[in-house]
Amino acid sequence: MPRDPQPRQEVTLAHIAKLAGVSAPTVSKVINGHPGVASSTRRRIEDLVREHGWRRRPDTGESSAIVEVVFESLDSLWALELIRGMDEVTQAYGMVLGLTDMRGRRSPHAGWIDQVLARRPLGVIAVSADIAERHHHRLASRNISLIALDPRGEPEHGVPSVGATNWNGGLSATRHLLELGHRRIAMVNGPDTLMCCRARLDGYRAALDAAGVPADPGLVRTAPLYVEGGRMQGTALLELPEPPTAVFAANDLQALGVYQAAHRAGLRVPEDLSVVGFDDLPLAQWADPPMTTVRQPLQKMGAAAARMVLTLASGAEPGEDRVELATRLEVRSSTAPPARFHRG
Amino acid sequence: MPRDPQPRQEVTLAHIAKLAGVSAPTVSKVINGHPGVASSTRRRIEDLVREHGWRRRPDTGESSAIVEVVFESLDSLWALELIRGMDEVTQAYGMVLGLTDMRGRRSPHAGWIDQVLARRPLGVIAVSADIAERHHHRLASRNISLIALDPRGEPEHGVPSVGATNWNGGLSATRHLLELGHRRIAMVNGPDTLMCCRARLDGYRAALDAAGVPADPGLVRTAPLYVEGGRMQGTALLELPEPPTAVFAANDLQALGVYQAAHRAGLRVPEDLSVVGFDDLPLAQWADPPMTTVRQPLQKMGAAAARMVLTLASGAEPGEDRVELATRLEVRSSTAPPARFHRG
Repeated sequence: MPRDPQPRQEVTLAHIAKLAGVSAPTVSKVINGHPGVASSTRRRIEDLVREHGWRRRPDTGESSAIVEVVFESLDSLWALELIRGMDEVTQAYGMVLGLTDMRGRRSPHAGWIDQVLARRPLGVIAVSADIAERHHHRLASRNISLIALDPRGEPEHGVPSVGATNWNGGLSATRHLLELGHRRIAMVNGPDTLMCCRARLDGYRAALDAAGVPADPGLVRTAPLYVEGGRMQGTALLELPEPPTAVFAANDLQALGVYQAAHRAGLRVPEDLSVVGFDDLPLAQWADPPMTTVRQPLQKMGAAAARMVLTLASGAEPGEDRVELATRLEVRSSTAPPARFHRG
Repeated sequence: MPRDPQPRQEVTLAHIAKLAGVSAPTVSKVINGHPGVASSTRRRIEDLVREHGWRRRPDTGESSAIVEVVFESLDSLWALELIRGMDEVTQAYGMVLGLTDMRGRRSPHAGWIDQVLARRPLGVIAVSADIAERHHHRLASRNISLIALDPRGEPEHGVPSVGATNWNGGLSATRHLLELGHRRIAMVNGPDTLMCCRARLDGYRAALDAAGVPADPGLVRTAPLYVEGGRMQGTALLELPEPPTAVFAANDLQALGVYQAAHRAGLRVPEDLSVVGFDDLPLAQWADPPMTTVRQPLQKMGAAAARMVLTLASGAEPGEDRVELATRLEVRSSTAPPARFHRG
């Protein structure tokens, strides 16, 4: 068996700086999670740091090189995209992402906080998960920062959070359908206990209002954020005496369920029914027809949350308490003018 | 702000045993990763341990409560299912899963092994990833066990591995198509550098051979294990002078690509083309029509790998060096007799 090779030459800040074509203080800023470096430069430096195997020396002897992530539910590509974004940052700093899946529970079980404290992570990222306030206190007393990623409700006082511009996403999806000529536009929303879903619904209503189209409360339905939810409510909507000509769903899985409801009713997407999703998971491109959807920059959201942990762990203040990254409408082939426009 | 509550009463083995209706030594066996407990009992005990927040005390002061996982590529629900299975076990033991995504690299970067050694995990699970042999030595010298999950090539000597019965899966998929009356059965396979894909191809050939159907080498294609790969090779197969009436794809994503190739060629699934996938990811049920596919027990595979780490960390020998969990054909609606059978 081959012997362990000689230890590699220490990778210095200066070495990374030279490769990146920047100054050593710039590399130091990036490594210590400080702001003030252009994102393209930061990305380049992080790539080099990852490539060359920099090992971060924790500031205190106490904390280990873990960033903990607690997921309410680890059951879709949505979660995986967030993980990839977080991992990109933790890896760049020689850390590891410590993962806990609550399998649909809203808060971690009783023993979890003791385990986390014993592991001494740099911070905890709660994804759509509620961390009890007494646990905030215990984390804070050990200098373990807490970040909320896409929090379920209003972000709690003092907990920095990362999300997306959900209201704007709902607005742009609905405006797109209005511009195509739709007037009976339904929304299949997720549970209204989720702040992101409330914001998407408000964006939908704002677009209708701005266009002077009265909102029909019978066209707004709530369902779980899965395919079955979209199929169930899509079917109900299409059975209405005056069915919608377009449906905006609160995520891509629901939108796929609306596709299925349309097919079962003998309707074609988009000729007979336009459908818009939300998230832009890979399945939106594979769907048949490819789905018009509101893109959430999930990897960037994950990366932003991980950077916030590192910034706080370095002792700096987070730049902002609430970061909302921009959503963007991706127009593909599941939306078209309503049928009466074709006929007319 | 509320004060930290009193420490919870210590959860004892005896308490868990009473709740589970088993003896304390049985709980101890499960907690220490020893064999000899029925899987339903083990599951019940693990659920109780998780529920009541047991905190494992590491056997040595050295190792922390992390199990590291290195993924070659963290980009599909396949990976997420494995993670969920591993997390179920690590959580039951009060540990955390430490995640690294190599983003398509086959081996971790140079600095990775130093970081892992510094974190002192109980073990490392490599998912479709190659860990250099000199790194095995360094891990072993610190009593950090290494497990291969769905290894790319032949499992290396001395590295216990977990996989699925890929050969049987290929056999049962192809036999199903033969029984429906298909004779021109194509296979879109993944890269033949992957052991799992070689085994699926051999199962396909064995089924044809057993049925006395000559294998046409022109009907076996290789493509990346993604939707685009299936679409590209599916299109090429359907443009043959004598196209296949059925396609067996090496994973569900490729099979979805074959659906798309069929639709673009104006063919219906399954009336004009039968399609079988492999994995049984959630998308197989959402596909239109729902996909006949070979189910891999991905969560169980993840859980088995995590249990192997705990068994080895407890100082016990692994029961077996290579565990293969059973695959099973799930017949849904993407397979039917070939068209000439309908007509005849």
